[in-house]
Amino acid sequence: MNEYAVYHQPESRFAYALDPNTLSITLRVAASDKLDSVEILYNTKYDFTRERFTVPMHVSACDGKFSYYRAVVRLTDVRFAYVFRITEKGKTYYYSEDGLLDDYDFDLAYYTFFQFPFINAVDVMPVVGWVSDATFYQIFVDRFARGDFDKDDGYINTPWNGEIDRHSFTGGDLDGITEKLDYLFDLGITALYLTPVFLSSSNHKYNVKDYLRVDPQFGDTEKLLRLIRAAHDRNMKVVIDCVFNHCDAEHEIFADVVKRGRKSKYYDWFLTDGVPDIEKGNYACFARCKRMPKWNTSNAAVRRYLIDIALEYVSLGFDGLRLDVADEISHDMWRQLRREIKAAAPDTLIIGEIWHDNEHWLRGDQFDGVMNYKLQKILIDGFGKDPVRATVVSERMNKLLVANLEQANAMALNFLDNHDTPRFLRLAGGNKDKLLCAFVAAVMFPGMPCVFYGTELPLDGDGDPDCRKPFDWMKANQNEAYLQNVKAILGLKKQAALSGGNATVSACGDILTITRRGGGECVTAYFNIGKKSAKLAVSGKILFSLSYGDDTIFGNGVLVVKNNN
Amino acid sequence: MNEYAVYHQPESRFAYALDPNTLSITLRVAASDKLDSVEILYNTKYDFTRERFTVPMHVSACDGKFSYYRAVVRLTDVRFAYVFRITEKGKTYYYSEDGLLDDYDFDLAYYTFFQFPFINAVDVMPVVGWVSDATFYQIFVDRFARGDFDKDDGYINTPWNGEIDRHSFTGGDLDGITEKLDYLFDLGITALYLTPVFLSSSNHKYNVKDYLRVDPQFGDTEKLLRLIRAAHDRNMKVVIDCVFNHCDAEHEIFADVVKRGRKSKYYDWFLTDGVPDIEKGNYACFARCKRMPKWNTSNAAVRRYLIDIALEYVSLGFDGLRLDVADEISHDMWRQLRREIKAAAPDTLIIGEIWHDNEHWLRGDQFDGVMNYKLQKILIDGFGKDPVRATVVSERMNKLLVANLEQANAMALNFLDNHDTPRFLRLAGGNKDKLLCAFVAAVMFPGMPCVFYGTELPLDGDGDPDCRKPFDWMKANQNEAYLQNVKAILGLKKQAALSGGNATVSACGDILTITRRGGGECVTAYFNIGKKSAKLAVSGKILFSLSYGDDTIFGNGVLVVKNNN
Repeated sequence: MNEYAVYHQPESRFAYALDPNTLSITLRVAASDKLDSVEILYNTKYDFTRERFTVPMHVSACDGKFSYYRAVVRLTDVRFAYVFRITEKGKTYYYSEDGLLDDYDFDLAYYTFFQFPFINAVDVMPVVGWVSDATFYQIFVDRFARGDFDKDDGYINTPWNGEIDRHSFTGGDLDGITEKLDYLFDLGITALYLTPVFLSSSNHKYNVKDYLRVDPQFGDTEKLLRLIRAAHDRNMKVVIDCVFNHCDAEHEIFADVVKRGRKSKYYDWFLTDGVPDIEKGNYACFARCKRMPKWNTSNAAVRRYLIDIALEYVSLGFDGLRLDVADEISHDMWRQLRREIKAAAPDTLIIGEIWHDNEHWLRGDQFDGVMNYKLQKILIDGFGKDPVRATVVSERMNKLLVANLEQANAMALNFLDNHDTPRFLRLAGGNKDKLLCAFVAAVMFPGMPCVFYGTELPLDGDGDPDCRKPFDWMKANQNEAYLQNVKAILGLKKQAALSGGNATVSACGDILTITRRGGGECVTAYFNIGKKSAKLAVSGKILFSLSYGDDTIFGNGVLVVKNNN
Repeated sequence: MNEYAVYHQPESRFAYALDPNTLSITLRVAASDKLDSVEILYNTKYDFTRERFTVPMHVSACDGKFSYYRAVVRLTDVRFAYVFRITEKGKTYYYSEDGLLDDYDFDLAYYTFFQFPFINAVDVMPVVGWVSDATFYQIFVDRFARGDFDKDDGYINTPWNGEIDRHSFTGGDLDGITEKLDYLFDLGITALYLTPVFLSSSNHKYNVKDYLRVDPQFGDTEKLLRLIRAAHDRNMKVVIDCVFNHCDAEHEIFADVVKRGRKSKYYDWFLTDGVPDIEKGNYACFARCKRMPKWNTSNAAVRRYLIDIALEYVSLGFDGLRLDVADEISHDMWRQLRREIKAAAPDTLIIGEIWHDNEHWLRGDQFDGVMNYKLQKILIDGFGKDPVRATVVSERMNKLLVANLEQANAMALNFLDNHDTPRFLRLAGGNKDKLLCAFVAAVMFPGMPCVFYGTELPLDGDGDPDCRKPFDWMKANQNEAYLQNVKAILGLKKQAALSGGNATVSACGDILTITRRGGGECVTAYFNIGKKSAKLAVSGKILFSLSYGDDTIFGNGVLVVKNNN
């Protein structure tokens, strides 16, 4: 076997607890290896040298280069010592902390077995209860709907249906969202993700001047509370965007440091090279935006200040926090935020914006999940204008499935596009079927699907600002066939099989297959991501189909069926 | 190149901060690959697609199967996006989050580069200042020295020089240690590690009945404070063994649960299956010892109780905590303990007892270091009765060097033996030269060397209880040549080159070489771990030698030389 490919690490995505009595153990090997069997030999560490139990492992994922053998082991005594036994063409190998060996001396195993020393319940990463069938809708507040026509609207510089640029204000507000809750409920939405709503000079409000004052363009605290209550009345959750990496240069704390310099009691609250000078820009900031100075989250007082704001958001009734530029903020702050937020309201969902490898944030001590940029990229590449082959999509989805704990997979926010990317429709060359297929994939993949406002029309658009066009309410409910498809796809998430963090993904020819199992059921989606039609004879109840008929699935087609598991 | 061998993971031992402006980046490849060059291409994530800087990587370690290329990168802007460029026989490869590719589209890099998003100072793992030249001495208190002859000594059941068994009490105490501090200082010891000293029915006191009452066999709080003060007067540190995994069944809290059952306010403080019954043993415990019930550290009240005890230890003056059975206690408790202990006294050293893979505890949020069982096993195998080849020792030392952050390496406790293992002299077949060579290796390897009491005589002994024989004060300072070697070896730790967490280790024939660099100096130890003599012509100042002369090093010989770096 390929000795270079074998990999395992205890207390990682390769070995973690699913609950206080259950471990998930994964071993990576070369996909090209033809193995007779892979097994775990285990016992408590105090009994391991004397005797071992055996549990078989099975391939749970394959990314083309590597196969991932997995076993879910239920334990009575949760002190777990283990060694892998691999057989290939009748030859046996043992894999332990000593590496891959032809033989293994169990009498001396105490120094070299792998171990998961004890499952302490408090260390098990839980899944927030309400995410199991959550379907999100992301709202860029200035652009979704205007409800308040009495407000001072002198700030509006662009008519609702006018041409927008980066500096446009079009008048969307909280009342507008509240008025449209029935529309969203009817669409099948169960959770809202709002971009920031607090005082800020911009239309996007990611440069916050006051974290606790609702921007008067959007409303006030009373209107915010009304929106949250109205959502809750419909059993809808509301997640708020938290911009804790940086603030606006006019935030009173930064302004105080600029004004008073070293005499300011906030001098250490930012990362400056001397007294901050906005002209010089001698301080850390978001990207290259000197108008957005970066908070120093190594400073305990800053953490206290920002976490108190997060706690206030939770006490306002928000059900989750979406953390902007989450990866540039200290892990120490995130650990503290999680502790305090979960102590105040355990069901609060904590989602970080991380575009890259994110295992270090998703071990149960920091975030629940991330914005699933990895999945988005796969969907763009697989369902966009120039799709890669189905096998490539499958391999990359498999790699993503094993990149994190199952619990974190279940709490990933699966979006096709958002306010920072082109609209998926544009990336798909305007092809609505491709958009719908990608949407089915986002629902079928473990995680929580998220519709960017207007996708149900569908809105088109390139990157910022074009992706942030106002919702065209004249077109709402007009494109009925398309809208029914959107609703049907969102409805898939209610299937019990789609509630966990696990899936199997494979490809054959142009057909990509995503299968979910759970609740005694099995739901499978077949995607034809090629240009040619293909025969596809399946059994089971058809939950959704697009470009499918007479046992034939056409390019940009998808078929979702349900069977008993 | 071998595509299966390539491995990197951000925010792990492969990518971490050394200080707020410096990253350590490591790439694993197959040792058999003959690469022309390995480089990091990097910039801030906001500039990466536009242009990149290049930094070469060099092999820092090789474990036989894999080579580890490393670069230490000093940054001004600490938002680090990077991709590896590898050339082999003129062919170029790129390694990113997309895997190993022949080509890489930098325009689309935003989704696929590796990143270390930001170095926040608070997340950088610090090295406790005083460990840089710390030389430890582990004392099993009942067996080191008796100082108090006025105490009620009815508990002593074995004369100091008598045959001991697991139930022997021989009379060692805190006053005995205090009296011997000058002896230890003269030996070159700068830090003590004491096995537990609090109320307990056993001689080892790992079954604690009262965490804050000094066992009267050993003394009282006043005597303990006198010992700590006397140590501090000699600039010696004192580390105390903390047994937080379990207590004695007679601890008043467990006794209350046994007595009152569900009515006890401590009912949830243990992991029981119903009301605990010592006869039935229906509760989690240490190993199979029903007399040692395991604390439920998932319970916040238990964490509060135990951490308050740790804080009290720190306020008594202890300079460090050695955490017994550390891996079976919740990570959550360790994070809280670290936060509170480091807030109270930042220089407190936190050392966990973990025999196995331990990266998850050593990222800066839990422990500083571990009891270095991995190194001990290598030393047993390399310098014991039937030594493995020098290349095997080198490969395993190299694997250990890259298993953790450099900072954690610097704070590992490097011991040859302790109260839970046979004496190293026994494992070395009674050969004192082997013992001394292993001792040099323990000092040369990154970490803090630790002498088990009596090694300087040397004491011999098999596993528990034979390794716990009383110190033979009749033999102290008698074996002068041997003792001078012990002192000289301990003295090596004062070399500036030995203070960090890095080393290079290699082997050629029977010669194992460990090199340390730092402070403008380079200290190299050459060990002949074969049976034949070998020629060894070296330049530099000889700091220590054993079985070396006329450019020849004999089996079980070692030579340590210093040069300018």
